[in-house]
Amino acid sequence: MEFLVSIEVRLPQSMTEPERTRLAAAEAERAAELAAQGTLLRVWRVPGRRANRGLWSAPDATALHAALCSLPLWPYLEIEVQALAAHPSDPGPR
Amino acid sequence: MEFLVSIEVRLPQSMTEPERTRLAAAEAERAAELAAQGTLLRVWRVPGRRANRGLWSAPDATALHAALCSLPLWPYLEIEVQALAAHPSDPGPR
Amino acid sequence: MEFLVSIEVRLPQSMTEPERTRLAAAEAERAAELAAQGTLLRVWRVPGRRANRGLWSAPDATALHAALCSLPLWPYLEIEVQALAAHPSDPGPR
Amino acid sequence: MEFLVSIEVRLPQSMTEPERTRLAAAEAERAAELAAQGTLLRVWRVPGRRANRGLWSAPDATALHAALCSLPLWPYLEIEVQALAAHPSDPGPR
Amino acid sequence: MEFLVSIEVRLPQSMTEPERTRLAAAEAERAAELAAQGTLLRVWRVPGRRANRGLWSAPDATALHAALCSLPLWPYLEIEVQALAAHPSDPGPR
Amino acid sequence: MEFLVSIEVRLPQSMTEPERTRLAAAEAERAAELAAQGTLLRVWRVPGRRANRGLWSAPDATALHAALCSLPLWPYLEIEVQALAAHPSDPGPR
Amino acid sequence: MEFLVSIEVRLPQSMTEPERTRLAAAEAERAAELAAQGTLLRVWRVPGRRANRGLWSAPDATALHAALCSLPLWPYLEIEVQALAAHPSDPGPR
Amino acid sequence: MEFLVSIEVRLPQSMTEPERTRLAAAEAERAAELAAQGTLLRVWRVPGRRANRGLWSAPDATALHAALCSLPLWPYLEIEVQALAAHPSDPGPR
Amino acid sequence: MEFLVSIEVRLPQSMTEPERTRLAAAEAERAAELAAQGTLLRVWRVPGRRANRGLWSAPDATALHAALCSLPLWPYLEIEVQALAAHPSDPGPR
Amino acid sequence: MEFLVSIEVRLPQSMTEPERTRLAAAEAERAAELAAQGTLLRVWRVPGRRANRGLWSAPDATALHAALCSLPLWPYLEIEVQALAAHPSDPGPR
Repeated sequence: MEFLVSIEVRLPQSMTEPERTRLAAAEAERAAELAAQGTLLRVWRVPGRRANRGLWSAPDATALHAALCSLPLWPYLEIEVQALAAHPSDPGPR
Repeated sequence: MEFLVSIEVRLPQSMTEPERTRLAAAEAERAAELAAQGTLLRVWRVPGRRANRGLWSAPDATALHAALCSLPLWPYLEIEVQALAAHPSDPGPR
Repeated sequence: MEFLVSIEVRLPQSMTEPERTRLAAAEAERAAELAAQGTLLRVWRVPGRRANRGLWSAPDATALHAALCSLPLWPYLEIEVQALAAHPSDPGPR
Repeated sequence: MEFLVSIEVRLPQSMTEPERTRLAAAEAERAAELAAQGTLLRVWRVPGRRANRGLWSAPDATALHAALCSLPLWPYLEIEVQALAAHPSDPGPR
Repeated sequence: MEFLVSIEVRLPQSMTEPERTRLAAAEAERAAELAAQGTLLRVWRVPGRRANRGLWSAPDATALHAALCSLPLWPYLEIEVQALAAHPSDPGPR
Repeated sequence: MEFLVSIEVRLPQSMTEPERTRLAAAEAERAAELAAQGTLLRVWRVPGRRANRGLWSAPDATALHAALCSLPLWPYLEIEVQALAAHPSDPGPR
Repeated sequence: MEFLVSIEVRLPQSMTEPERTRLAAAEAERAAELAAQGTLLRVWRVPGRRANRGLWSAPDATALHAALCSLPLWPYLEIEVQALAAHPSDPGPR
Repeated sequence: MEFLVSIEVRLPQSMTEPERTRLAAAEAERAAELAAQGTLLRVWRVPGRRANRGLWSAPDATALHAALCSLPLWPYLEIEVQALAAHPSDPGPR
Repeated sequence: MEFLVSIEVRLPQSMTEPERTRLAAAEAERAAELAAQGTLLRVWRVPGRRANRGLWSAPDATALHAALCSLPLWPYLEIEVQALAAHPSDPGPR
Repeated sequence: MEFLVSIEVRLPQSMTEPERTRLAAAEAERAAELAAQGTLLRVWRVPGRRANRGLWSAPDATALHAALCSLPLWPYLEIEVQALAAHPSDPGPR
């Protein structure tokens, strides 16, 4: 099942630059793992914001929640999930 | 350039069933053309609603607008477009 | 997988009383079928409104959409779906 | 009387990990008590968020408020309550 | 149990003046009955609008819904219900 | 003139428990005075929230503002005021 | 007591031009009367919209409601009223 | 040109009482100057809130912005500006 | 003075195709006149919608309102106006 | 491709005056560079707010994001981007 996931990143002003750098690297690494296992299918930046829109795949909402919680930035993320149903005109993931 | 397009379908109550059927067929045909030419990349139904979320590709917003206007259902669509920027963690369209 | 489904009923003012009565009976019948097959688990009225909140179960969003479309009142419903994930403190459906 | 309760958890960034762990354990314990006494009927996670949706039962809004205040996380919760009326198509709590 | 009920009246433009007058009279009569039986405790106009805010009393949300449905204007009303809990500083209905 | 007053209490996380207790006692005392002088007619808790809805009486908005400012919790309150007009179906304050 | 009144005019598409002209003239006449009696103090157009913002004076919300209802356009108006309190820095109506 | 200006005051909880008193005095003094020079025409308190609605006059939005920035409380103000157009029924500033 | 003007076009479903064509031509002609006289500086389509965002210049809000009212589509437009102030970093209209 | 960019500046209360001055100077310098290279076409202040509306030009959303991130105030900006399509009535940038 696919999900459209909207994420806004809310880093506290008090976070130091090294901590931000460290977290960003860990986040990229974890995203690569989730992509490799087919959970994170696509992700885009929302221009002008620390935010992204992503296409995720998971057996159900419980598994999706576990994947999202595994992100190192998780404590700082504001997330909205839209469950997606199949559309007859979908060209498919190719 | 990719765009996230949110579409709500607002068919007037007065539209007859045959007209709906005819329009739906024409819409599916046009969607197939747009998919074949690489403009409509993915599309999903929003469960419970006559609505969809789609991933579209177009050179710019002007070309995207032309593609959306070419949909037979266009006069009845309520559309929101979100321009997307590349994200370093995007696994890509594969 | 469970879903929280919010439904507002928007009957056109032009609908005749007999048509309303007929539709309400058909709706109740279909709801009973969906309940019998375990798709509609619970449903409540929102006090003061032609609206309900329901707990639905379906394999995924595509199956849920099919179930919602099968409601006789479907053309007149405004629906929001919230996918639900398991919570460790859930006493369960008993 | 049943209520649909929407809870968002807003833990302060300054809360230490041990304090979070301690509170989560106390919360789970209290939730179990409320479930055992028939006040908390069902609860689900909202995927991607520290949030839940729950089905609660209480004699009235005053008793429900007392139950919600008894949660250890109470000072950090943002809560919306929707009173529910019986629906003739409800399969019941079975 | 008390409820704060917000009602907006949405009469169709096509309703004739005699029908409006007839409905207004029936509404006032039914309101008087609900007041006499202790269901409608207080009601105020929202200045500038065909709208009111009311304090209602009913055993639960199901009974409140039945009372609201009994209003002759019911098909034209947009209603929001807020369940109320007791407050220790309430001077009481006196 | 009567007013419907909606109050959300936003206590800072840094406030100590003794200070909260002291403020709550002072608030209850002031509310009792305002009730005694006929300014605070009714007040209810919004279930699940540090919030209340109240029915206030004051000669005009200026006097109401003065009464609200006199609450010890005033610096922490988020307040919305709805001026109320008389409704012909109001059973009255009894 | 003064009130800030926000009015959006929603004329039905079906209204004929002569009817619009007649109503506009009647509205202007009634506005002049309300201004002469000191109820309508100031009124401005919201640029780009059939809408206005006005400063009104009335003994209380009930009297204000009566004044607003007396407008010939009343059945087509969407109105929001903000009760105003005196401000120590107000230069006054001069 | 006239403007309707909505101001919400957001003082930080950390501001000391003497600083608040000093700022309030400076604000009143600057408001008096702006009133004297015909920039601030009227101002009202929103009952129950540290907020006001004001009628301002300035040659254009740039001049209005300069006037608003000159307020001592400026760093703590949340401001919305509505440009106003002349209305034929306006009784005028007298 | 410059204004940012947001326009949504709401054509009634009942409007015939010839009437739409005639109105669109008249609108384009009037827009050209407003551009020629320096009132309409720039205008863009919002992709996917019958809507536009425009940069307008007018002595004040009253003159802007007159210009907007002169559009043949005016009865069908939903308009929001944002007054603009000069910014020191503006490269200017060049 | 052109974009309409809405920016709200959210400086933390804890930022010192010298830091604000230094950042404002760096921001103006960077804005001048972006204007010189044709990325920032126009920018206006929203009267009464630390906010601006700007017209930006960039090959696509990815390039626009890079330009916005290059602003020294970037960590404190809340940004909304609206992609713009060509309009046949646009007088053009002259």
